[in-house]
Amino acid sequence: MEKKEMSETIIALSKNAMEAWLKGNPTPYLNLYSNDFTYFDPSTDFRLDGWEKIQELYESMRGKVYVERFDIINPKVQLNGNMAVLSFNLHMFAGDMVWKENCTEIYYFTEEKEWKIIHSHFSPTKPSLK
Amino acid sequence: MEKKEMSETIIALSKNAMEAWLKGNPTPYLNLYSNDFTYFDPSTDFRLDGWEKIQELYESMRGKVYVERFDIINPKVQLNGNMAVLSFNLHMFAGDMVWKENCTEIYYFTEEKEWKIIHSHFSPTKPSLK
Repeated sequence: MEKKEMSETIIALSKNAMEAWLKGNPTPYLNLYSNDFTYFDPSTDFRLDGWEKIQELYESMRGKVYVERFDIINPKVQLNGNMAVLSFNLHMFAGDMVWKENCTEIYYFTEEKEWKIIHSHFSPTKPSLK
Repeated sequence: MEKKEMSETIIALSKNAMEAWLKGNPTPYLNLYSNDFTYFDPSTDFRLDGWEKIQELYESMRGKVYVERFDIINPKVQLNGNMAVLSFNLHMFAGDMVWKENCTEIYYFTEEKEWKIIHSHFSPTKPSLK
C-alpha cells in the first residue's frame, strides 16, 4: 500500500470511530484498541493500561456523549514500518459550546493485516492551569 | 539488542533529557528531536510541526525552568520494529508546589542507529476544565 493511501486509511478509521463516539457509541473505538492498549485521559490520575480499563471507562459513558459536530484539524500521519502516529487538533461543538482537544493515536499494523491503536493521548487544548 | 535493553535505553534517554530540561537546559531534548518532530504542548492552540518550532519554544524558556526534583512514574515502552512508544506520568516538585503531567514520546530508530523522538504529547494530569 502506498504511504498516501495508508495515511488516508488511518485518518478514516479514526474519523469514523470519532463520529460514533461523539454520538455516544464507543464500539468502533473499542474495536480499534489492541489488547495491550494504553491511554491518557484528562479525567484520570494515571495512565490506563489494558483494553479492559478503556472498555470500563467508555462503557460508563455510553449514550452520555453528545456533540453536534466536530472538526479534525490538520491530521498528520507519521509512518515508519508497521507503525503510524496520527495526531490532530479536535474541535467539538454543541449549541454555543466549543471544546478543543489535542489528540495523538499510535497505530500498529498487525500480523492479521489490521490497523490497531496501541496508545492514545487525549488532552484539552490550552487548559486553565491551577 | 534485547527488548528489555532497548526499553531501558529509551527510558534513560528521556530521563536524562528531562533532568537537564527541568533545570532549564533544553539541549539534550532538542538533540533527541527529529527534523520532522511534531509536538502537543499545553500552552499552544495547535500542534507544533518541525524541529525549528520546538527549538523556538524551548529556547524561549532556556534558564527559566526550575524544578527541584521529579519522578517518572510507571514508564512503559511499547516496542514494534524500529518504533517505540514511551509513556509515563511525571510528577515535579519545587518547594510546596507539585505539578503532574501525562507524557507520551514516540521514538524511531534511525538508519544512523540512533533513537530520535518524532512526536511528543505532554499535558497536565486532570486539569481543571472550563
